[in-house]
Amino acid sequence: MSKERNIVVTTTTGQYIDELPVELVERKGIGHPDSLCDGIAERISVEYSKWCRENLGVILHHNFDKVQLVAGEADVTYGRGQMITPIRIQIAGRGLPTYQGKMVPMDTIAIEAARKHLQETLRYLDPVKHVVIDSYAGRGVEELQYTVNHNVANDTSFGVSHWPRSVLEHAVYETAQYINFDLIEQFPIGEDVKVMGARRGKDIVLTVAMPLIGPEIADATEYTELCHAAEQAIQVYAQELSAYDVKVDVNTADDVENDAVYLTLTGTSAEHGDDGSVGRGNRVNGVIAPFRSASLEAAAGKNPVTHVGKLYNLLAMEASQAIVAQVPEVRAATVYILSQIGHPLDEPLVATASIDTQNGHVHPKVEGAVTEVLDAQLGSIDELREKILRQELPVC
Amino acid sequence: MSKERNIVVTTTTGQYIDELPVELVERKGIGHPDSLCDGIAERISVEYSKWCRENLGVILHHNFDKVQLVAGEADVTYGRGQMITPIRIQIAGRGLPTYQGKMVPMDTIAIEAARKHLQETLRYLDPVKHVVIDSYAGRGVEELQYTVNHNVANDTSFGVSHWPRSVLEHAVYETAQYINFDLIEQFPIGEDVKVMGARRGKDIVLTVAMPLIGPEIADATEYTELCHAAEQAIQVYAQELSAYDVKVDVNTADDVENDAVYLTLTGTSAEHGDDGSVGRGNRVNGVIAPFRSASLEAAAGKNPVTHVGKLYNLLAMEASQAIVAQVPEVRAATVYILSQIGHPLDEPLVATASIDTQNGHVHPKVEGAVTEVLDAQLGSIDELREKILRQELPVC
Amino acid sequence: MSKERNIVVTTTTGQYIDELPVELVERKGIGHPDSLCDGIAERISVEYSKWCRENLGVILHHNFDKVQLVAGEADVTYGRGQMITPIRIQIAGRGLPTYQGKMVPMDTIAIEAARKHLQETLRYLDPVKHVVIDSYAGRGVEELQYTVNHNVANDTSFGVSHWPRSVLEHAVYETAQYINFDLIEQFPIGEDVKVMGARRGKDIVLTVAMPLIGPEIADATEYTELCHAAEQAIQVYAQELSAYDVKVDVNTADDVENDAVYLTLTGTSAEHGDDGSVGRGNRVNGVIAPFRSASLEAAAGKNPVTHVGKLYNLLAMEASQAIVAQVPEVRAATVYILSQIGHPLDEPLVATASIDTQNGHVHPKVEGAVTEVLDAQLGSIDELREKILRQELPVC
Amino acid sequence: MSKERNIVVTTTTGQYIDELPVELVERKGIGHPDSLCDGIAERISVEYSKWCRENLGVILHHNFDKVQLVAGEADVTYGRGQMITPIRIQIAGRGLPTYQGKMVPMDTIAIEAARKHLQETLRYLDPVKHVVIDSYAGRGVEELQYTVNHNVANDTSFGVSHWPRSVLEHAVYETAQYINFDLIEQFPIGEDVKVMGARRGKDIVLTVAMPLIGPEIADATEYTELCHAAEQAIQVYAQELSAYDVKVDVNTADDVENDAVYLTLTGTSAEHGDDGSVGRGNRVNGVIAPFRSASLEAAAGKNPVTHVGKLYNLLAMEASQAIVAQVPEVRAATVYILSQIGHPLDEPLVATASIDTQNGHVHPKVEGAVTEVLDAQLGSIDELREKILRQELPVC
Repeated sequence: MSKERNIVVTTTTGQYIDELPVELVERKGIGHPDSLCDGIAERISVEYSKWCRENLGVILHHNFDKVQLVAGEADVTYGRGQMITPIRIQIAGRGLPTYQGKMVPMDTIAIEAARKHLQETLRYLDPVKHVVIDSYAGRGVEELQYTVNHNVANDTSFGVSHWPRSVLEHAVYETAQYINFDLIEQFPIGEDVKVMGARRGKDIVLTVAMPLIGPEIADATEYTELCHAAEQAIQVYAQELSAYDVKVDVNTADDVENDAVYLTLTGTSAEHGDDGSVGRGNRVNGVIAPFRSASLEAAAGKNPVTHVGKLYNLLAMEASQAIVAQVPEVRAATVYILSQIGHPLDEPLVATASIDTQNGHVHPKVEGAVTEVLDAQLGSIDELREKILRQELPVC
Repeated sequence: MSKERNIVVTTTTGQYIDELPVELVERKGIGHPDSLCDGIAERISVEYSKWCRENLGVILHHNFDKVQLVAGEADVTYGRGQMITPIRIQIAGRGLPTYQGKMVPMDTIAIEAARKHLQETLRYLDPVKHVVIDSYAGRGVEELQYTVNHNVANDTSFGVSHWPRSVLEHAVYETAQYINFDLIEQFPIGEDVKVMGARRGKDIVLTVAMPLIGPEIADATEYTELCHAAEQAIQVYAQELSAYDVKVDVNTADDVENDAVYLTLTGTSAEHGDDGSVGRGNRVNGVIAPFRSASLEAAAGKNPVTHVGKLYNLLAMEASQAIVAQVPEVRAATVYILSQIGHPLDEPLVATASIDTQNGHVHPKVEGAVTEVLDAQLGSIDELREKILRQELPVC
Repeated sequence: MSKERNIVVTTTTGQYIDELPVELVERKGIGHPDSLCDGIAERISVEYSKWCRENLGVILHHNFDKVQLVAGEADVTYGRGQMITPIRIQIAGRGLPTYQGKMVPMDTIAIEAARKHLQETLRYLDPVKHVVIDSYAGRGVEELQYTVNHNVANDTSFGVSHWPRSVLEHAVYETAQYINFDLIEQFPIGEDVKVMGARRGKDIVLTVAMPLIGPEIADATEYTELCHAAEQAIQVYAQELSAYDVKVDVNTADDVENDAVYLTLTGTSAEHGDDGSVGRGNRVNGVIAPFRSASLEAAAGKNPVTHVGKLYNLLAMEASQAIVAQVPEVRAATVYILSQIGHPLDEPLVATASIDTQNGHVHPKVEGAVTEVLDAQLGSIDELREKILRQELPVC
Repeated sequence: MSKERNIVVTTTTGQYIDELPVELVERKGIGHPDSLCDGIAERISVEYSKWCRENLGVILHHNFDKVQLVAGEADVTYGRGQMITPIRIQIAGRGLPTYQGKMVPMDTIAIEAARKHLQETLRYLDPVKHVVIDSYAGRGVEELQYTVNHNVANDTSFGVSHWPRSVLEHAVYETAQYINFDLIEQFPIGEDVKVMGARRGKDIVLTVAMPLIGPEIADATEYTELCHAAEQAIQVYAQELSAYDVKVDVNTADDVENDAVYLTLTGTSAEHGDDGSVGRGNRVNGVIAPFRSASLEAAAGKNPVTHVGKLYNLLAMEASQAIVAQVPEVRAATVYILSQIGHPLDEPLVATASIDTQNGHVHPKVEGAVTEVLDAQLGSIDELREKILRQELPVC
């Protein structure tokens, strides 16, 4: 190791997450208003970066981590639905509007990227008819207006992530993904799924809120049947995810008799009454896990070149996965990385791997192996960036 | 105890926060764009609640926890400054536009509340000339459109807080407050202070970013002198906060020779290049402490009647303070409260007090005392609400 | 005549328009920012009316005669072009948001109608990528919120039009239409054509401003050749429109050497620097003719059921055409119609036909024939409305 | 005359305006939504010009002639009123954002100017609480981005005005002004007055729509009394304006029993249901007179240095007044001025004075005198500009 990577390996103290008496985990599905904002912010950063590379040969500094969704108004019932007032997407964000005499179409890129994300995420929403997207992007502060081409931390900041997921995290994450990508093929359901998992001992309750598509459903009877069938399918799927006892509840807030049911036209509550914002949903590991250390920093929309808040969170995620995969003695790892503003990104102030071994203490050989893996990860930030730009690393 | 409060008292395991080898804590001052959004959101909730009470005799359901700030453009240098493009505040949020035939001036209340918050927070910013405030508030989802007058959790959610602050948290929080409320009387500085604290062992470095007011400063010499004097004052103040070794750095990113200095017209970077959003800054305990458990839920702007995300976070804060104050054996407490949707707010799924005693284990008498305090706190949610409405509990 | 139609026939006094020593006439082509706003406003009224009829069985009151276009920013040169900041369309307007318990998707109809108009009008503009359309439509004043189903004037107002066009009006109108609908097939030109005609005696100068499409043109040489060829084609066409001497000038403001040429990406100056608004362009007869009587009332966007400002202008146009067509002795007619608020639309305060006969005075038989034609026109307002809804009567 | 002023003096042919059998004239008072937009546009131009002069020593090119007002929503009845949704002012417009390295605060100037105009025009409206003002001003087209400091026409355009007002025009104009500036001192009425005058022979009917201020009026009885008293006062005033028979009707659309009365909170219908736009109201002579020649060009908001659409309309107004004042034989004059793009402003293509003498024909001496006056007026365009900048010439 020629670089100053300041790696520390420690043993995790305290109870193992699965052994805590109570645990609470949530995942907002890909169509939740907050997830949509995260997804849009990230897509803007990706498209802006691509445009810059193709047209300028360099990725310019930018920060598109502020996007607000103002709920629309929809009129939906069994068998039909119409959009009364469109959803409004308000893009803020900073970037360079000109570079070496060339104009950068920031607003146009941002709006188009937002539309693409909606297009590819929500099957029942028409991103042209149901949404008004406007961009208020502008020039950033003077001192940040240099090209982003040096490998230097832009801030004193912090990234953290862990691997593997706890039993409950796993149940919540996989269940939400199952609904978003599999179940949706079989049922007329929307993407704005929310899975809230609560565990007491080894009993898990998964509370699922899941919009159904009004125009596709004839009446209350069909609605009830569909919810029931979906619940059963989810129950079967979720039960197989662990040895714990799982109970799935779908749309518990419904009052079918009084027509208080979860019907949408577009598959997202953003169509009526639910606003959204960046950084208010899942962390980079895909869940909200309040019993875990997590960064408040929103990764979505930040520039993938120098922004520590983005890079170190994703790096911590990748590194903890790599440690568990490559060092057999480690059953769980939490990686913390602290930046030093102005220092190279691969020379953090300190990079800590807190590891959990089967037997509870860390053999020097294991420590060496972990250090090696973490060092390699820090050395491959360039690769991480490419993965980000290829959208291979979800940020929420 | 007649109520089902499900209180659990446990001993804190793992290292005490001050004994961790490395710690990182941040506070965004009251004029930071994110803090402004939090403050505006909360003020809207307060003013809307007050209006409802005075005019309707009841607080209507609402949720104003989405506010976005789009940075303006300012032209500032030594001795002068002008606003080129105003800051834009975009208020989203949900509430009831009519109640029993009476109209509720949601947009007007929201805009006026935002202006008041800016007026009372930033001394150099003119909330009329420097800012455009618009509201996109609308009706919430059908099923939430009942009056909010029953004491029932609106969600399966979670609150957590701890007390006391760690040595570093204390240093960061108090230093930021000192600059925001004391130092500002002596120097031409703005409210958009950011204090980042890093601790290694017993060495603390506080990195302060602090805008100076361009029109009040003659030239680079005066700027340098002011920064230096301010740094000294902060150093003296911060050193007295603990026995640890403290080093204060002010405006380290400056390059005075090349005029890359931190000058503003209005005292906030929102005037030029820094966007803001709700829920992206300090937690209810006033800091961002990534090594601690924290709720991602934004408290600011949520209704103070049924919203668990707001109430339980503030309750956990109050309860942990009360435990430490009233049970001498406890040196530190972390309180977690989990709601049960549809159940009374004062009957949570589980309320856990994780306590840290001087000697490391919990005597049944102590456990009883802690339970009693927590039980009393849960029983006084009504009082908590009144405190919120009187703005006595900061939410960021 | 059973109805009180208050028809008056008078002889036109003063000089015949073609005999005035000087005349000035202008036409803004269909792609001019003001014409786009007129077209959008009218299309919204048409689509809203259609929606109401199909879904409610009645056309609700509405008034969409306020639409503002904020210019975008484009970066165009020979061989390429990109949109930097999109054009913004801001729709105001009033209508009924609900009727007999049914919701009317006013904003969605308005935005979709605007997009359709742009789609069908501008071949180089992408109404999704190049434009942000937002609607601020709302409820109208209480007293107008009844259904619009009675044939009663909503205002004391006024309509006027004449036929035929003067020689200069004819030259200007037909030339603009020729460019917009014929020449555009042969040359890479946009729809934002402006033809300004000045006549002194029998000499006409037509000054044409006409955008060329940057990406379709290789360089300054090609640009110059194209302008020259287009100018020749227009010259040939315009010369044949009358016996007067016509001189055509195309893009006189160009300074090719200094690259001050009229290149666009989308075919309209709205893409860069030219804002637009309803009612600021052509009158219902297709031209701006300051030497003629004209209503200031914008016809575009107004409801076609009761709005006098729309109906009487179009009716005057139709009536003057019918008089000239059906009464051989009349070579020109100007029709004025004044409404009486609260009275049936086909019973105006006064309807005046000012006619120009070959020999200068009006024979009673001619007067009777003119009265009959005008009376028939007043009696066929229902038909006029259907023509409006079928978009057969241009309003600008 | 050394300059090429191309002055032509002709006799007016056709019937004198007062002798037409029917005439219709309208004035929208200073608080009408369209008049507000005109006033705001003009004030922006004035403030931008002043700023440029003071800070840059030159008036930069600009064009702020697009302003849209989106109606708010108010809840008003006898004795009270509240604003539910604010009025929105959307400023478009073009100007130079930078000049010789100095930044021009276009948006800030525009918004502040709009607020000032509202402040000084409407006594019951609070321009901060009741209105959201936003500016979308931007850079104009490349070819217009030079300084505006040469006396050259920017367009082939046209101005026209006449003097004196017809008997009906006088009645309408003075009555509206009387209500706006005198009557308002005695009654709780708003500024959004509309006076529609219809004349048949020598009988004039003035239909006045005039908002009353809800919070100032106790009940329907007081409302009826106030309307009646105001009507009487206006009747007395209007009758003295001419020898014609005048009948005044105030708020004829009222249906007091069904509470369909004209109450406002702010004195303008913009608060609820009435949108506004520039160029849709009074011409530069203060009225809408459809039987007269008039320019469609909106004078308000255009730059006072080179914009023919503004300068020639105002010049025609001033010149016709000067002719009537200085040449005793002339009882009425209509002045038309046509520009030549690229030529000095004081060398028009043709300037025609169409005059009406007592005896019906023009003596060469009179012709000479008229020519002289018109020549002098053309020679004093600089003075005209200063008057515009001092706001001495109303544009609507």
